[in-house]
Amino acid sequence: MPFKLTILGCDSAIPTVDKQQTAQLLNVNERFFLIDCGENTQVQLRKYQLSFQRISHVLISHLHGDHYYGLIGLITSMHLLGRNKGLHIYAHEPLKEIINVQLSASNTNLNYPLFFHILPTNDEKILFKDDNVEISNFLLDHTIDCSGFLFRELSSQQKKIKEKIDEDNITSDKIKNYADYNNENNQVINNSKLTSTISNLHSYAYCSDTRFLSRIIPIISNVDVLYHETTFSEELVERAIETGHSTTKDAANIAKEANVKKLLIGHYSKRYKNLNVLLEESKQYFNNSFLTKEGDVFDFNTF
Amino acid sequence: MPFKLTILGCDSAIPTVDKQQTAQLLNVNERFFLIDCGENTQVQLRKYQLSFQRISHVLISHLHGDHYYGLIGLITSMHLLGRNKGLHIYAHEPLKEIINVQLSASNTNLNYPLFFHILPTNDEKILFKDDNVEISNFLLDHTIDCSGFLFRELSSQQKKIKEKIDEDNITSDKIKNYADYNNENNQVINNSKLTSTISNLHSYAYCSDTRFLSRIIPIISNVDVLYHETTFSEELVERAIETGHSTTKDAANIAKEANVKKLLIGHYSKRYKNLNVLLEESKQYFNNSFLTKEGDVFDFNTF
Repeated sequence: MPFKLTILGCDSAIPTVDKQQTAQLLNVNERFFLIDCGENTQVQLRKYQLSFQRISHVLISHLHGDHYYGLIGLITSMHLLGRNKGLHIYAHEPLKEIINVQLSASNTNLNYPLFFHILPTNDEKILFKDDNVEISNFLLDHTIDCSGFLFRELSSQQKKIKEKIDEDNITSDKIKNYADYNNENNQVINNSKLTSTISNLHSYAYCSDTRFLSRIIPIISNVDVLYHETTFSEELVERAIETGHSTTKDAANIAKEANVKKLLIGHYSKRYKNLNVLLEESKQYFNNSFLTKEGDVFDFNTF
Repeated sequence: MPFKLTILGCDSAIPTVDKQQTAQLLNVNERFFLIDCGENTQVQLRKYQLSFQRISHVLISHLHGDHYYGLIGLITSMHLLGRNKGLHIYAHEPLKEIINVQLSASNTNLNYPLFFHILPTNDEKILFKDDNVEISNFLLDHTIDCSGFLFRELSSQQKKIKEKIDEDNITSDKIKNYADYNNENNQVINNSKLTSTISNLHSYAYCSDTRFLSRIIPIISNVDVLYHETTFSEELVERAIETGHSTTKDAANIAKEANVKKLLIGHYSKRYKNLNVLLEESKQYFNNSFLTKEGDVFDFNTF
């Protein structure tokens, strides 16, 4: 099934003409999860032709502006464009008041329900689960409460054998829930002939913003892809600790110890004009490191 | 003295890749006033190489998001970039809480003082006055409390006669406050020989968002430039009234009756792909009409 990550923004703190703040869109079987939402994210979604009305869940890691200032605009635009489908928001508690005071000031009653789910500040738990994916939070070490998110595709899922379905003109909705299928000749086709268990379950861990934190290693171990912030290069480790951030070395060591397949880095300090400096440093410790840049798409089915 | 307006955004409601929401920067003798602040305004300021640290006053007409969602990001970036000069904000009362809950959520204590001035909702008064300019509000007719702003250059100002100053090597700070000047030979040079009263006093009226409102005509009469929203074309007058907006005809009639020199229109509904439709309509009623578009600069000294 589709499991695809689009980078909408990957820069830190202060946006500029060519540097968008953190936001990512994860497509899990055509359910869309927005992860963080820096200022101007709604325009980034348009730029990459991603319908923001299809977003069902928004997860905000923490309440520094570069991770959420775009949310109220997105919520408002969804409303103005006639959305009626509910939107689930997972964030720390103060965001609820931040949204409410703004809707109240503009005398706005949203056309659609907003379901607010408060992120725990001292607990790690499953936030969401459906047939395809389970999402849980894990605690990070930043200057304010900050949460990482872990997305795991579920093993109960089955994969359609498309050839067989086409042959018998069976539409996918008829083989849901592991049911066998009665065809037009009243022959029973066993579900196992139509589907097979997925052997390659995708997983994605999102870590922004945090100091180096070894306790997350077992939580995210063996994920396909780890996004880990790398605000600073290795030489600025003291500045990283002071400001609650990580260096390239920190991120790469987490990736290595957790035995992840790919490491994506981002949330770069503005001081780095050439991001390859960060990439090369990261690769010294974990070779399968990649820079994120606006517009990048990582399709988990291709690796 | 400089009196120059830069359009940072001139579209309504929902931002897109090439449509920025309302924001304007008025330079009055190198004091910078930001008028409204839609999402992404800080990036627009950067795009047009306008230092946002030089902004001393922000005026927010009303609390619909397309007029202020960019403010919290601007305030935060000013802080992160080390501002220590105070910032004055003129807005309706709820904005104070909106800013405070967001600063509180991120545990931010600004490096600089924020002076919040509450706009009256049933009164029209002088909001600000210095040696150069007087700014007052006037009430508009929108779906929520909304304020227009009138900028008038002050008649007490004097203009330097630059040739004379250069000849005597007199620096401008020595001839302030109408003082005569004692030169190196102890000769007294009368101030009237160094300066002359400005005969052409600039003025600017800003009206967004509002239904047609004839009572503003005497307030803004004879201004050099009127910016008046024209969300809709004439045929959608009922939609305009319903949503608290104006048509091209409304704006042009206000301009005509108020005997302004130039009319700038903006805040266009997204339905207009070709804005010349709106311009041509406006010109039917008031010939000296101009479209605003992002990046436009209107230098009041040139007309």
